[in-house]
Amino acid sequence: MLECTFIILGATGDLTKRKLIPAIYKLVEDKRIEKFAIVGASLSQTTSDKILQQAKNFISKPDTKILEKIESSFYYQQLDFHTDEGYLDLKKLIVKVEKKHKLCGNKIFYLATMPEHFDIITQNLAKHKIVEKHSNKDECENCNHPWSRIVYEKPFGYDLKSAKKINRCISKLFHEKQIYRIDHFLGKELVGNIALIRFTNRIFEPLWNNKNIDSIQIILSEKIGIENRGAFYDKYGAIKDVIQNHVLQMLALVAMEAPNTLSAKPIRDAKAKILKKVKIESAILGQYEGYKKEKNVNPKSNTETFAALKATINNKRWKGVPFYLKAGKCLNEKESSIHIKFKMVKCLLKTCPSDSNYLTISVKPDKGITLDLNAKVPGEAYKITPVQMNFCHSCIFGPNTPAAYEILLSDVIKGDQSTFVRADEIEESWKIVEQVDKSKLKVYPYKKGSDGPKELKLLDKSRIIKWRS
Amino acid sequence: MLECTFIILGATGDLTKRKLIPAIYKLVEDKRIEKFAIVGASLSQTTSDKILQQAKNFISKPDTKILEKIESSFYYQQLDFHTDEGYLDLKKLIVKVEKKHKLCGNKIFYLATMPEHFDIITQNLAKHKIVEKHSNKDECENCNHPWSRIVYEKPFGYDLKSAKKINRCISKLFHEKQIYRIDHFLGKELVGNIALIRFTNRIFEPLWNNKNIDSIQIILSEKIGIENRGAFYDKYGAIKDVIQNHVLQMLALVAMEAPNTLSAKPIRDAKAKILKKVKIESAILGQYEGYKKEKNVNPKSNTETFAALKATINNKRWKGVPFYLKAGKCLNEKESSIHIKFKMVKCLLKTCPSDSNYLTISVKPDKGITLDLNAKVPGEAYKITPVQMNFCHSCIFGPNTPAAYEILLSDVIKGDQSTFVRADEIEESWKIVEQVDKSKLKVYPYKKGSDGPKELKLLDKSRIIKWRS
Repeated sequence: MLECTFIILGATGDLTKRKLIPAIYKLVEDKRIEKFAIVGASLSQTTSDKILQQAKNFISKPDTKILEKIESSFYYQQLDFHTDEGYLDLKKLIVKVEKKHKLCGNKIFYLATMPEHFDIITQNLAKHKIVEKHSNKDECENCNHPWSRIVYEKPFGYDLKSAKKINRCISKLFHEKQIYRIDHFLGKELVGNIALIRFTNRIFEPLWNNKNIDSIQIILSEKIGIENRGAFYDKYGAIKDVIQNHVLQMLALVAMEAPNTLSAKPIRDAKAKILKKVKIESAILGQYEGYKKEKNVNPKSNTETFAALKATINNKRWKGVPFYLKAGKCLNEKESSIHIKFKMVKCLLKTCPSDSNYLTISVKPDKGITLDLNAKVPGEAYKITPVQMNFCHSCIFGPNTPAAYEILLSDVIKGDQSTFVRADEIEESWKIVEQVDKSKLKVYPYKKGSDGPKELKLLDKSRIIKWRS
Repeated sequence: MLECTFIILGATGDLTKRKLIPAIYKLVEDKRIEKFAIVGASLSQTTSDKILQQAKNFISKPDTKILEKIESSFYYQQLDFHTDEGYLDLKKLIVKVEKKHKLCGNKIFYLATMPEHFDIITQNLAKHKIVEKHSNKDECENCNHPWSRIVYEKPFGYDLKSAKKINRCISKLFHEKQIYRIDHFLGKELVGNIALIRFTNRIFEPLWNNKNIDSIQIILSEKIGIENRGAFYDKYGAIKDVIQNHVLQMLALVAMEAPNTLSAKPIRDAKAKILKKVKIESAILGQYEGYKKEKNVNPKSNTETFAALKATINNKRWKGVPFYLKAGKCLNEKESSIHIKFKMVKCLLKTCPSDSNYLTISVKPDKGITLDLNAKVPGEAYKITPVQMNFCHSCIFGPNTPAAYEILLSDVIKGDQSTFVRADEIEESWKIVEQVDKSKLKVYPYKKGSDGPKELKLLDKSRIIKWRS
């Protein structure tokens, strides 16, 4: 029986209306949940109706019946994260709601807040016995043992130190098995495909090493700027905002050794193991022109809105293969993708191939997988031209594959942690990005809509990088 | 200067009107030849106009100007292959035509006849000095040294003995460099692609061995029966008609070791070398129901219209990898294709992949390359489903890529022998098919429009073959 109560802490925030409520709507529509209630909590004086009203704008073609179902199961509790009273009221409300909706007691606590609140909320949820620490076996078979799971939205901390502090706090109070650290990229179809495609197809693993691979690019480019997130962004910057999490998770999935089985623990073991070996060799930082004038940004800010890192992994598989990681705002492309560049072939032709083979995993947009090959020019015996083989995800599966947050919530309900980041992975990722010593790096300006600062070419002095976008 | 006189021996046959004249038309249209004349010769009393009239039906959307150009350059000579007189007249006509059209003397002699005439025609062409043996250097740089090249249509002989006899005869009279043995499959775009795709893309060669490949299928299925070719077909059968040539040429291109360069001699060396190692392990023969009642077929005929062979190649690369070769008439599919089946991957999932990866080269129809992969089912973390990556040849290059005979004639004009079969390859291929001792094999009946005799499953007793069509 797939049932639970969603308790959203930070229910008036953007995430709730843009992602969480629409995701719950989809879970209902796709019958991934049978019985549920929602309890929102936040500092503001508001109502569940108002939140739902705002969330509706982010649901495409909403069905009245499902909306009514959500409306009649949605409650709101005003809550100051720092005082006891609110939690007592929240606890009472949850008990009432579970009784009213005949729910078995399964609970998802979703901390849709900034990481500075994670400690206090976690402590209060434990202190007031709103969440109880599980015995090691956290599965609810017949609802005699309802489960409680706690979801922490990204970012998980501000740096290694703060992430460790949060981990310490929550690991004292709950089992790691109850803890779901969000990296919503892990809910994206093409990211979820990386390990499956690597390890269920014979053709990839023999090629997946430094004998055949020249270099790997992982790109997360955005056309948009920082929008209304000036205060947040100025504190974080591109490296902490997206490289520490999304980019390094993609790297881990691409670079990890084969897990024993494709399931949560071995995959997370393999990711954590490879992250331990990542070394940052060099970095180029940039800031788009006009950034300092954005709202809530320090006019003298030195925060990077663009970062390109050269990473290496010193193991047998990857020795000598550079990983180029690039992320930025106000760029000329919107793209999240992984490009595996293969080595050049020994040339047996008079006119040699101009470029090598690439395997491209397009996370967004144009989700799919592309293989860049050389083929014969028709009518010419020995002339080659680049062609592509495509696996177009939307052409095969349709454009309406589940969105990341639906997948992630569904995985929490199922108790599958493979799409969530374990404590050690989070900490290793922070360690990696902290190898970049920003105090020693210049932040180069770049024009909005460009492909980043022109100094990008200095990232790897040993060779020219042919960026794939 | 791309110029020559085409001398077609057997000018009233099907091949001339269906393929050769349309191919010359296309050479003119595509500007692959600048100056030319055509001299047809055959036993019949006819005219070049009549031949052109028939050929026009096989030219799609003919352009009047090009037709007029061909008409005004097309001559006919009645010729009994066995008497001297005709050849003297032919010689005079060629001299006259070359003078009239101001041609430099380059000549292509196309023997569009049955192989029993190859010896006598070749001998007479030499005897009357219509074709002269080249010095070893057969390139015409400035037309002080015009070239003569002789093209032999398939089939080249009836068996190893007759093929050897023809080779002996022509090699005495001419240089191998002047000799072009046709296998029109070598003019097909996707066949021409095999070596180029294998050796100009890094991703294939590391996979191309018995460590990763499970088995290879080469299929040449036809829906049509023997049509009006009863007398010919009943003498040949499926093995000699298409396996000895087309199928084994495809096998050679797939299985050969890397040539030193991608050019005629090293490719033909590599093909001849691998053909020497092909061993036929078993064979299943079939005959479609009703074959014995076809026109010009022996009512007690035991000729196979279907053959499936299991071949092996005992070298380091291919030890243990069966090659399944299948060809037949009146089958349920029209298809020429190569299917590389990769080994199963070690299964890391609860629900394992149902099938392995395949790389399919579709020679016809749907020309292109397909890769069968496993990918994640959207919304499911560990479920996989088969998907395809495609390189659709006609989508990229358009549907009007040059037809095989245009390519082949163009290669003869350029003096490129890579798409033609060398003496040793021809003889090795005959040796391979002569490993099948038909006297010891039953010919099983099969229904028209079926996938062959049900006894096909006996081809490889050690495993079940999952035929790809």
